[in-house]
Amino acid sequence: MLLIQIFNKKKKKNPKHDRHNKMAKIEKTSPLAPSGFPDFPEIDGIELATAATETKYRGRDDLLCVSFPKGATVAGVLTRSRTSSAPVGLCRNNLETGKKARALLVNAGNANAFTGKAGDDAMTSTVRTLAGKMGCDEDQIYVSSTGVIGEVLDGDKINAHMDGIIQDLSGKHWPAAAKAILTTDTFAKGAVRTATINGVKVKINGFAKGSGMIAPDMATMLAYIFTDADLSQEILQNIMNRAADKSFNSITVDSDTSTSDTFLAFASGAEKIGRITDINDPALAEFCAVFEDLSLDLAHQVVKDGEGARKFITITVTGAEDNRAAKVIALSIANSPLVKTAIAGEDANWGRIVMAVGKAGEAADRDSLEIIIGGQKVTEHGMAVAGYDEDACTRHLQGLEINLSVDVGVGGGTATVWTCDLTHGYIDINADYRS
Amino acid sequence: MLLIQIFNKKKKKNPKHDRHNKMAKIEKTSPLAPSGFPDFPEIDGIELATAATETKYRGRDDLLCVSFPKGATVAGVLTRSRTSSAPVGLCRNNLETGKKARALLVNAGNANAFTGKAGDDAMTSTVRTLAGKMGCDEDQIYVSSTGVIGEVLDGDKINAHMDGIIQDLSGKHWPAAAKAILTTDTFAKGAVRTATINGVKVKINGFAKGSGMIAPDMATMLAYIFTDADLSQEILQNIMNRAADKSFNSITVDSDTSTSDTFLAFASGAEKIGRITDINDPALAEFCAVFEDLSLDLAHQVVKDGEGARKFITITVTGAEDNRAAKVIALSIANSPLVKTAIAGEDANWGRIVMAVGKAGEAADRDSLEIIIGGQKVTEHGMAVAGYDEDACTRHLQGLEINLSVDVGVGGGTATVWTCDLTHGYIDINADYRS
Repeated sequence: MLLIQIFNKKKKKNPKHDRHNKMAKIEKTSPLAPSGFPDFPEIDGIELATAATETKYRGRDDLLCVSFPKGATVAGVLTRSRTSSAPVGLCRNNLETGKKARALLVNAGNANAFTGKAGDDAMTSTVRTLAGKMGCDEDQIYVSSTGVIGEVLDGDKINAHMDGIIQDLSGKHWPAAAKAILTTDTFAKGAVRTATINGVKVKINGFAKGSGMIAPDMATMLAYIFTDADLSQEILQNIMNRAADKSFNSITVDSDTSTSDTFLAFASGAEKIGRITDINDPALAEFCAVFEDLSLDLAHQVVKDGEGARKFITITVTGAEDNRAAKVIALSIANSPLVKTAIAGEDANWGRIVMAVGKAGEAADRDSLEIIIGGQKVTEHGMAVAGYDEDACTRHLQGLEINLSVDVGVGGGTATVWTCDLTHGYIDINADYRS
Repeated sequence: MLLIQIFNKKKKKNPKHDRHNKMAKIEKTSPLAPSGFPDFPEIDGIELATAATETKYRGRDDLLCVSFPKGATVAGVLTRSRTSSAPVGLCRNNLETGKKARALLVNAGNANAFTGKAGDDAMTSTVRTLAGKMGCDEDQIYVSSTGVIGEVLDGDKINAHMDGIIQDLSGKHWPAAAKAILTTDTFAKGAVRTATINGVKVKINGFAKGSGMIAPDMATMLAYIFTDADLSQEILQNIMNRAADKSFNSITVDSDTSTSDTFLAFASGAEKIGRITDINDPALAEFCAVFEDLSLDLAHQVVKDGEGARKFITITVTGAEDNRAAKVIALSIANSPLVKTAIAGEDANWGRIVMAVGKAGEAADRDSLEIIIGGQKVTEHGMAVAGYDEDACTRHLQGLEINLSVDVGVGGGTATVWTCDLTHGYIDINADYRS
């Protein structure tokens, strides 16, 4: 545990690295935070518990365990990073077995990424301990770790809380669960929905974390969705793939992609909905739409808690060669530091949007480019609209929710992505703190 | 001129948009600025003059004219933006004619980009005026405009200075020329070299501008190189292409690519070097190397003046699949807001480098990834080097020149790119000022 000692030593003599102080300082700073956390219904057979391991943080829970009834299916979408963490590798391997899931174990404060064999061993020891106590196979345990990269996780510290956490399991602990997985987040992110499949009403509960290192494919983001619907792994995976594309893979805070991004869905199977084998079965339409809507809700909450975010920005691109090209252009705008700082400054500097369209490298007709800011058309036919009301644009930019639409004039492709502005807060959080 | 009136009105009532105040405020803030401007030798037949048109700035020259002797060749590398400006289009068209260049006209403060037919007309009127006075064809005049996008240039204001500027032409005005083209830059950027071709000593003078909207292919960057060597357009173009790839196309400040990027080289032909038709002619080797070295010098000066830059960062990637992959990975690191803020905070947070390698999408072996910070190896075999000296890393990061090396362990591809840190200064400059 030499590495941890090194880092602890550093942390002690350098108070700016004290995570807890920082959390206190940045808490409640997002003007985009929701008014409260939703009421979560219990889902038959799914139980949750949290504990404080003091791996990194003091005075807060940082460990989450969720247990599933026998027969629960699981599906997942994982980071495409070429340097993904040990827990991501574990989830990927487990998913390939096609076996049922029995538990999810999440710790916050240490990502256990880029920690080599020592990190693998620490993870494996926690999995073995939990599987032993649950009486299940090790590959039925799913793991996520989020926090600092490059420090070996102290598995013993986590194992020491395993008995307690299993004793505390309860169907009620959803808010505590959503809180325990946070790192630089300033608020807990949750959403609940219901849907009907073949006349059977089913529940969908979800929570997530993430506020920096956020970019498509995926983000430093953990998101978990739970349902009591009796869905096969294959169907659940197809539903997730569609939903992820329109939600978690359409948001960006800083264009940085984490080594640990994990989106998992678990279906307890308590509600029998009849045999469904095709994602396009009409009986599934409502569930798919609601699942996507819940995913989008969580994704938006992640953006609204983007590090230093003061504004929530919706960018819609139309008229692109195809939907893929539209998304590339939309993300080029969403990731442009110059666009993001202009919005932070409430400056209707649409020239930077023109620049971002140009640099995307996708087909765009400069001379028919149309930019709309908050419903106000500011450019058409390759130049500013004569006499457009810049004050109206500025008033729109002074609000919390910003809408940009760009038509690039070459085809029928469309896409919408979401991001936040780039502010001094982002620099504060990231320039002098090891997150 | 309706648009200009709208913007002027806005500017008056909103003092934060006053460019001149801002320049005064940010001047001398870069700790990376060179100690002085180099001594430029005169180049036979090349004359320069500057003037203050007050298009945007007050109290400084903002217009540059350079005249070339009959027979001067020209070559260029231009932005790949799909929304490039009118002057970029003009340069591209002129280059295609293969005709000799007679003059270069540059204005600062207004990019005349995305200004439609009105912008084209304004540009054409300045070209016609200058060509008339020089007694040459219009397509022998090269134009660059840099500054705000979306405002139509006032051609009359520029034409009003044409007689004066032609009268003032002199072989001595290199420093004034380098200053007149600046926008958000805090210092003038120039470099001079000599080289020998077939026993003939030739001069190479260059100057550039750029500090934000800087990314490969190319940057909001104008760069001009002048030589007295007798080079054909084709040879000059080949020399530039090679040099641009290793210099201007290997730097990034904020990943944003301008609509106006222009790199032009002019060869007066005063020094007869003999007939050279092949870029690989050994007689040309020294000139090519010196030309590239001068380009790199200018490119480094642009990065050192990056908006808000406090540190100059050199990133070398080795062990990639090929050189292209190495450059993609190096730029992924160089453009990562999390890496750039960590360096601004002098925090040896190498986990973010691992992240940036992972997100690049190119082959990388996580378990043999090697990261060296300032000569100190911090990771090998997929984890931190046990007991590495983090204090030594921190001391290196406290300096002005930062060196990061990453070996991704899969092949022989290498690349080096340069960038700067991401600081509060960048937000200051871009969040509340229309540049």
